Amino acid sequence: MKVAIIGGGAAGMTAASRVKALRPNWDVMVFEKSGFVSHAPCGIPFYVGGAVNHFEELCAYDIQHFRVERGIDVHVNSRVVSVDDGQITVEEEGREKEYEWDKLLFATGSRAQRLNVVGEELDGILCVNDVDRAQEVKAKAMNSENVVIIGSGYIGVEMADAISRLGKKVTVIEVRERPLPEYDAEIAAIIKSEMEKVVELKLSERVVAFEGKERVEKVITNKGEYPCDLAIVAVGVHPNTEIASRFIKLGKSGAIKTNSRMETSRENVYAAGDCAESTNVVTGKEDWIPLAAPANKMGYVAGVNIAGLEMHYPGSLKSQLTSFRDLEIGKAGLSESEAIREGFEVVSAFITSRTSARYLPGGLIHLKVVADRNGKLLGVQAAGKDVSMRIYAASALLYNGCNVKDMFFTDFPYYPPISRVWDPLVVAARNLFRKLGIP
Amino acid sequence: MKVAIIGGGAAGMTAASRVKALRPNWDVMVFEKSGFVSHAPCGIPFYVGGAVNHFEELCAYDIQHFRVERGIDVHVNSRVVSVDDGQITVEEEGREKEYEWDKLLFATGSRAQRLNVVGEELDGILCVNDVDRAQEVKAKAMNSENVVIIGSGYIGVEMADAISRLGKKVTVIEVRERPLPEYDAEIAAIIKSEMEKVVELKLSERVVAFEGKERVEKVITNKGEYPCDLAIVAVGVHPNTEIASRFIKLGKSGAIKTNSRMETSRENVYAAGDCAESTNVVTGKEDWIPLAAPANKMGYVAGVNIAGLEMHYPGSLKSQLTSFRDLEIGKAGLSESEAIREGFEVVSAFITSRTSARYLPGGLIHLKVVADRNGKLLGVQAAGKDVSMRIYAASALLYNGCNVKDMFFTDFPYYPPISRVWDPLVVAARNLFRKLGIP
Repeated sequence: MKVAIIGGGAAGMTAASRVKALRPNWDVMVFEKSGFVSHAPCGIPFYVGGAVNHFEELCAYDIQHFRVERGIDVHVNSRVVSVDDGQITVEEEGREKEYEWDKLLFATGSRAQRLNVVGEELDGILCVNDVDRAQEVKAKAMNSENVVIIGSGYIGVEMADAISRLGKKVTVIEVRERPLPEYDAEIAAIIKSEMEKVVELKLSERVVAFEGKERVEKVITNKGEYPCDLAIVAVGVHPNTEIASRFIKLGKSGAIKTNSRMETSRENVYAAGDCAESTNVVTGKEDWIPLAAPANKMGYVAGVNIAGLEMHYPGSLKSQLTSFRDLEIGKAGLSESEAIREGFEVVSAFITSRTSARYLPGGLIHLKVVADRNGKLLGVQAAGKDVSMRIYAASALLYNGCNVKDMFFTDFPYYPPISRVWDPLVVAARNLFRKLGIP
Repeated sequence: MKVAIIGGGAAGMTAASRVKALRPNWDVMVFEKSGFVSHAPCGIPFYVGGAVNHFEELCAYDIQHFRVERGIDVHVNSRVVSVDDGQITVEEEGREKEYEWDKLLFATGSRAQRLNVVGEELDGILCVNDVDRAQEVKAKAMNSENVVIIGSGYIGVEMADAISRLGKKVTVIEVRERPLPEYDAEIAAIIKSEMEKVVELKLSERVVAFEGKERVEKVITNKGEYPCDLAIVAVGVHPNTEIASRFIKLGKSGAIKTNSRMETSRENVYAAGDCAESTNVVTGKEDWIPLAAPANKMGYVAGVNIAGLEMHYPGSLKSQLTSFRDLEIGKAGLSESEAIREGFEVVSAFITSRTSARYLPGGLIHLKVVADRNGKLLGVQAAGKDVSMRIYAASALLYNGCNVKDMFFTDFPYYPPISRVWDPLVVAARNLFRKLGIP
C-alpha cells in the first residue's frame, strides 16, 4: 500500500509515524513544502524573546530521524501542485513529478491571515506562523526600535511579551475592544492592565494602511498613525485548502470536512490538523480548531484509520494556556459571549481567590466559569497565578460533559502552598450553586 | 430546631455555617474541646519551617466571626462527656452542662496514632496533628540539635523538610521499605533520593523504645539507636469515635459508618470529616479518608441534609499533593500495590518526561498511571516538576470514572514553557494503549 501525506507538520508526521508503526511494510511518503518537518511554530515567540537561543531547536526532530528510524519517505522543499484519483503531482527541485497513492492524507496546515490593506507588501511587515520566518522576525526585531503588532490573540500577546523583553517599544493594535478577544471582559480587563504596563495597547482600532518608501515606516489606523521599523501581523490563521477544495468537500468554516475517523468526503482520503474540521466537544458541533495538541491527536487518529484499524477522534475544547510576563492566562471551552452566540442560556461566576492557604504567600487567581441553565459546564477562563492546574482540571471536566456539581465534588488535592482547601474551582462551583438553586 | 455539632474543625464549622445559611432561625451549637475553631493543622509544617511567622495565622477565622457574622453558638474548651437521645452532656469551665438537640453531627476528627512502646510518655516526644501543639513543636525544634521523625507519610515528609530547613540534623525512621509508602516503588525511589540529600533516612526499621532521664535522649529501633532532643511521632491518625461508638455504628475502618447524605445508623444523627467513613470513588467501597478537602465537603453535605434539603456526597479519591524541597509529589486514586490489594487486575505505565517543550528549560516529571484490564483508570502518581496540574487533571478524570482513552483524548492545553504538545499524561496513556491492545 502507498500512503501519501501532504504536509510534514504536527498532524502529518504523527500520522506518518503511526502508519509505519502499525504497517511497517507500507510505503509512507510525506511531501513538505518547507525545508523542515515536525516544526514547532508555537516556539517562535520564545526564540524571538531570547528564551530559545538556536533556531534549529524549534524543529522537534531532524529529517534523518524520520527517514532512518521510522522509515518514512520524507520529501522536503516539495510542493504539491495537484491531486487526482490515485495520483499526486509534486514540484521538487524545479520540476514536476508524479507519485501514486492508495491512501491520501491532507495535513496542509494553516497560514497567517492577511489584512488586505494598502502597503501590506512592504518590507518589514511579517507574520510569525511559519518556522522558516522565525529567523527573519528575530533579526528584524533586534534591529528595530519601534515594533507594531497587529492583533492581540495568543500570537500577538506572546510576540508583544517577547519583543518588549528585547527592550523595544511595542505598540499592539487590536480591532476589537479588548485584548485576547476570545476571553470575556472580566478576564480581558486583567490582561489589559498587565499588558499596559509594558506595551502601548490600542483597542478598537482598525489598521487601514501601511506606509513607507522601501520598507514599512508607519502603520495607519482609523484613529491615528504609528511609526515603526517592523510590523507583525497576527490577526488569525486560515486553513490551507486550495488543493483540497478541488478534490474533497470543505465544511462551513472553510476547513476540510471530516468525520470522527478523520475521513473526508472521498474514500481513502483523510484530513488532519489545522486544515481540517473536527468536533467542538462543548457544542457538539463541527468546528475549526487550529491548535498544536489537537493537530497531533487528529494525526494519530488519521494514522490508525489509514492503517486499516479503527479509532475515533472525539474533538477538542480549544484549551489554551499562555502568559504575559508574570500573568498566566488560560481557557478551556466557551467564554460567556461565545456560549450566548452558540444559543446557550447561561449562568456564570467570576471570582478572585488566593491560590495558597491564607497563611502562605501564594498569589491571586481570577476565574470565570460558564454553565448552562441545567448546570452543565460550558467553559472556564482564568488569569493570575497557578492557572495551568485549573485549566488542566477544567479540560478534563469539560471533556467529560461534567456539571457544576462535579466541579464542586471533584476531589482536588489540598496542599497549602499552592492550593486551597476550597479550591478556586470549587468556590466558583459553589457560587453557581446559588444561581442554579442548588443548596 | 436545635442542632448540636461536636467538633469545631473543618467539617463541623462548614456544616454549622451551611445550616445557618439555609435555616437562619435554627439554633446551631458547636462544642469544640480545644480553644480554636476552623483550625488548619495542615499548616503546621509551614509554621515550624518558618514560612508562616505567627501561630495565630493557622486559624482560618476567629471565633467571634462565627458567632457574630454567622450566628453560630460556638463553645470552645468544651468537652463532650456523653451523648443521649436528644441530649448532650458537656464539660465546660470545670462543670458538666446539658444541652438539648434535635439533630446532631459528629465532627470529632482524628488524632495522632501512638507507637505504644516503652518511654513514649517522656518529655520531648510530640505529635503534630493538633494546632494547639504547633507552638510547642516549633519551640522544641528550634532548641534541638538532633530531631528524629518517626514515620514518613505526608506529615513525616513535610516535617522532615521543615525541620531540616531550620538547620537541624534530622533522622527519619520508617517501618516500611520506602518513604511515602502509599506510593509505588518507582515514585518512592525518586522521593527517597531527594530526601537523602538532606536527612538521614532509615527504612525498614521499627521503633521499639524511647530512652531518657527526664526527657527523650534516644530513639531505639530494632536495628540501632539514634540520639535526639526531640522525637516527632507521625505514624498515622486514628478516628475519634469513643463517644460515637456507644451511640451509633462504626464501619470496618473504625470510623463512623455513614451513607451519602452523611447520615449515621441513628435518625437525625450525622457524621462528617475525619471521624466518618465515606466512599472511595475508585473502588466504589466504603473507605476512611481523613483529609482536609474531603472533610470540608462532607461538612457541607451534612449541613445541607441537616437543614432538611437533600445533597449526596459522592466520596473522594484520596487526592494529595506535597513536596520535599524542590520535588513536587502527588497522587490521586490507587497505587498499583493498592489496586492489586483491592483485587483489580492491573496494567501500569511509568514514564519520565520533560515538562516543557524541548527547546525551553522546564524540568522532569515522573508519572505512573495505573488502570484495570479494561482500561479504566485507577490511579495516578507523580514526582518532579509541575506535578499539581497533572494531579488536578487526574483527579477530574478519576472522579468521572474515565479510561485511558479519555486521558489520551482530553484536550490538555499546550504552552511550551510548562506543557508539551504530548502531555506526560497523554504519553502515559499512549504507553498503556500498547499494553491494552489499543492501536
